[in-house]
Amino acid sequence: MAAKDLWSTDPRDALRVGPDFDLASFDRNGQPGWDGDKDDGQAYLPERGEEMSELQERLFAEGREGGKRSVLLVLQGLDTAGKGGIVRHVVGMVDPQGVALASFGVPTEEERSHHYLWRIEKELPPPGRIGVFDRSHYEDVLVVRVDELVPEDVWRARYDEINAWEKELVEGGTTIIKVALMVSYAEQGERLMERLERPDKHWKFNPGDLDTRSKWPAFQEAYADVFRLTSTEDAPWYVVPADKKWYSRLAITEILTRTLEELDPQWPVADFDVEEMKKALVATGEDAPA
Amino acid sequence: MAAKDLWSTDPRDALRVGPDFDLASFDRNGQPGWDGDKDDGQAYLPERGEEMSELQERLFAEGREGGKRSVLLVLQGLDTAGKGGIVRHVVGMVDPQGVALASFGVPTEEERSHHYLWRIEKELPPPGRIGVFDRSHYEDVLVVRVDELVPEDVWRARYDEINAWEKELVEGGTTIIKVALMVSYAEQGERLMERLERPDKHWKFNPGDLDTRSKWPAFQEAYADVFRLTSTEDAPWYVVPADKKWYSRLAITEILTRTLEELDPQWPVADFDVEEMKKALVATGEDAPA
Repeated sequence: MAAKDLWSTDPRDALRVGPDFDLASFDRNGQPGWDGDKDDGQAYLPERGEEMSELQERLFAEGREGGKRSVLLVLQGLDTAGKGGIVRHVVGMVDPQGVALASFGVPTEEERSHHYLWRIEKELPPPGRIGVFDRSHYEDVLVVRVDELVPEDVWRARYDEINAWEKELVEGGTTIIKVALMVSYAEQGERLMERLERPDKHWKFNPGDLDTRSKWPAFQEAYADVFRLTSTEDAPWYVVPADKKWYSRLAITEILTRTLEELDPQWPVADFDVEEMKKALVATGEDAPA
Repeated sequence: MAAKDLWSTDPRDALRVGPDFDLASFDRNGQPGWDGDKDDGQAYLPERGEEMSELQERLFAEGREGGKRSVLLVLQGLDTAGKGGIVRHVVGMVDPQGVALASFGVPTEEERSHHYLWRIEKELPPPGRIGVFDRSHYEDVLVVRVDELVPEDVWRARYDEINAWEKELVEGGTTIIKVALMVSYAEQGERLMERLERPDKHWKFNPGDLDTRSKWPAFQEAYADVFRLTSTEDAPWYVVPADKKWYSRLAITEILTRTLEELDPQWPVADFDVEEMKKALVATGEDAPA
């Protein structure tokens, strides 16, 4: 059995948020669609990464020769859900030249003085590139909502606005892959404790993380609304169980790779006469002119 | 014998441009400092990459906690010298979150309407980051000189200006590693032919590459002046033979890693009471609040 066949269900189908999605009962320790175990997953990851990497290069080449398509991977998740690990271990498998990475924290005062999409638009991937957002415009209906940084009528209006904005992006040639990494409360506690126990992890811990943890129910509610209101046909959400890091990395690699496979970017056809250029090159000789 | 010991000379010493450097007699097929062969080099590369990657994370952590230090890798070289391969295979070994990558081509008209350092300064790495310039401000004394895009007195003034500007950068906490990949004329011809023979490489070929190749002596002269005039104590040039791709990747990895080892970044000390935080975390319990 080939490793690929251990995906008994396409993870895009297994993880896509549909009308019946219920965050409260979602198993954050699951491995939907993958019939193998951790070892199988870890063995398959680099192999699949190679394929993803070649597809990325084709997309990049297409973009260099006038193609307009790009991919945007939006990563959301609470502290310790593993967003950084996805960037390092999944995005890190492709050529850095093909990636446009941006991180968005709680909006700064300057950013809040602009429209909330202002800082986001500046970071959209150019044609041919895979954009990666470590947090995103969804912070404007998550932390901004939970911490009441704007009035309710303001954030309530944003779901529709985001849907319309993403639809335009998709029409412009960007394939949007929205991934929410969902870690369980217990696992988050363990990962925070690990950051406190290891001096090489202290810098990753912020006392504010406990404050955010204390608002768990409000964040779950805000996430549930995000999934309910912004998982569109143009830009669906994939909710990925994050208690098993090996699974979330494997699943996101698979989603990215299958998306690229469907985009099926082709090596651009030369816009010059190849045989003529070969002759011209041969004529330059093997020894440097003096 | 440990693989590391196959570096009989620190590549920074073996490759640094000193007063006696002579580009005309430089062996572009050499492997200065490395006593092993290609297999040894390829076996050692990922191992050394792991070490580089951990050091990069420490530097990143330092930058997150107020440290001001950064590293800037400047990559120069003629077409096919392998700059892209260095980004992919060397820079690609570290976490994308720790890298700030920028590419500079022939300056656009808008860029030429500004001071030539304008577009460069915008891309300098923030604290904690490894900046990577695929081409750089040196284009302004290379292609700009060869193609006479500005008058001679203008480009002649730039060497001193660049030295002064880099000195300021270094004083501000940036370690600058300037690497020129030097490919031979014959090898460049072969690599260009490969791009013409393989349809998946056609997009990397530009008919203008033959025009640039025809200006080989002028570019060699311009490079020789760059090395003679801008290899300073603050920011020396390393000229790397590029006919053996495995060697150039190995050497640049080694230069980067040794530089990071000397910077010796430390995990930041927690600015909060760790034991108090552990207690507070335990108090949040294992079950999500309702």
